[in-house]
Amino acid sequence: MKKTGKTGIVYLVGAGPGDPELLTLRAYRLLKTSDVVAHDKLISKTILNLIPKKTEKISVGRRGYRSMGTAPSIHPEVIEKAKAGKSVVRLKSGDPMLFGRGGEEAIALSEAGITFQIVPGVTAALGAASSLGIPLTQRFISSDVTFATAHTSHGPMANLLDWASLPARGTIVLYMVSHHLKENMKRLIEYGRSPDTPAAFVSAATLKAERVVIGTVSNLAKLVGHIDDKHASLVIIGEVVSIHEKIKSLAVTGYVGKGKEAGRICHWP
Amino acid sequence: MKKTGKTGIVYLVGAGPGDPELLTLRAYRLLKTSDVVAHDKLISKTILNLIPKKTEKISVGRRGYRSMGTAPSIHPEVIEKAKAGKSVVRLKSGDPMLFGRGGEEAIALSEAGITFQIVPGVTAALGAASSLGIPLTQRFISSDVTFATAHTSHGPMANLLDWASLPARGTIVLYMVSHHLKENMKRLIEYGRSPDTPAAFVSAATLKAERVVIGTVSNLAKLVGHIDDKHASLVIIGEVVSIHEKIKSLAVTGYVGKGKEAGRICHWP
Repeated sequence: MKKTGKTGIVYLVGAGPGDPELLTLRAYRLLKTSDVVAHDKLISKTILNLIPKKTEKISVGRRGYRSMGTAPSIHPEVIEKAKAGKSVVRLKSGDPMLFGRGGEEAIALSEAGITFQIVPGVTAALGAASSLGIPLTQRFISSDVTFATAHTSHGPMANLLDWASLPARGTIVLYMVSHHLKENMKRLIEYGRSPDTPAAFVSAATLKAERVVIGTVSNLAKLVGHIDDKHASLVIIGEVVSIHEKIKSLAVTGYVGKGKEAGRICHWP
Repeated sequence: MKKTGKTGIVYLVGAGPGDPELLTLRAYRLLKTSDVVAHDKLISKTILNLIPKKTEKISVGRRGYRSMGTAPSIHPEVIEKAKAGKSVVRLKSGDPMLFGRGGEEAIALSEAGITFQIVPGVTAALGAASSLGIPLTQRFISSDVTFATAHTSHGPMANLLDWASLPARGTIVLYMVSHHLKENMKRLIEYGRSPDTPAAFVSAATLKAERVVIGTVSNLAKLVGHIDDKHASLVIIGEVVSIHEKIKSLAVTGYVGKGKEAGRICHWP
């Protein structure tokens, strides 16, 4: 790698839920102008297709570089490229500061003395809420929503998630549930949620491959069956889920791109 | 209003936290092409300035049209314009499905037989988290975050918010706290949070007028003092707040627009 006189910079950028139309203007412009894009494997192809051919692309693992230890971590190439004077977009699904490990990567960059900036994105739950017609809060029904993850039974997140203290009435969104949906729904019931509480499963929210299953906490896992983990998935739990029945005329009329990775798009007015 | 042969449509669009660069591509394009934009009073001027002069603009109140009853509500002009064949953007701060009353407006549109679509946005908490360098979740520190509001002592939201069931360890973000910051912090302590829990107040997040105060649950209200309610404000509570000290080299180098309403922007790579 040749050294240049330029000062490198890293942008920790949220790519949003999948539909390229849900990139922020800032994310879009950074993708078009940076020297290097280091992206998670879960970033949709329609978004990756926006990156110019001359831009160096690095795939940094399923959900980014993972350290099993307690040390903050970032993919070593991101640091190398920035030290060589490159502008690097570290592109992350959803939002970098919500289950995105953006905090860890920011600490690592700070410790390495590299200038960086964090660019927020539309988190998957918000993409799903709009796409499915499920408000996460609604007057007289729910005034709070908890975003949680319990993606492994043994990982550090599972140890931290305090099931007993999850709100008794508010909306809950569980991220990264694909491998433990049945156990997670069972725990919700053990910790006091009614088995009849409405629940919605969605994978590939806002993409053409979007899959939605509506049920209750007690029957959702059975209704969903096999989960294809090529796409991110999440579950929305609470009385707000039933509101989607009142919201019927969503005007989805087309998609951008081709095939399963295409992004949802509507006709322009 | 003249009737046309065109079919009207309403877009319930999230404008993001304030910085116009944090609009989604879809929101930006809809603002540029729709016949009418009906917006909350809290939408920043730099975003309103993006709307073409020929577009009809309607200000629909501080946070949108409010019904004191239980019926779903939307501003009557939004319905009228759509029925007259116009394409109408109903522009809301943050995200429409999270404290945005997007659910109520969607139900009202559905009941009125009007085609509509919901476009998600970057909610204020995510804008603030990136801007302040505070991850809302972080391994070994917090695996969940609860977004709640308790903006009045007597309103319907206050009745619903179940303080006792707010998570004991996870991150909490309180929206719309400007009038009751002291009482809200007191309640958090009453319901078990340590008075020493780190807490961050932010108003006008991502805008040039952004104001940040870092303290603890016990001293935040005193440190903040008078709150200018011209801008939206929120509070982030939890151990994650102290991470901002480790994230120091944020590369904010300029703003777009002029004056207090200008949006934050960084130099392009």
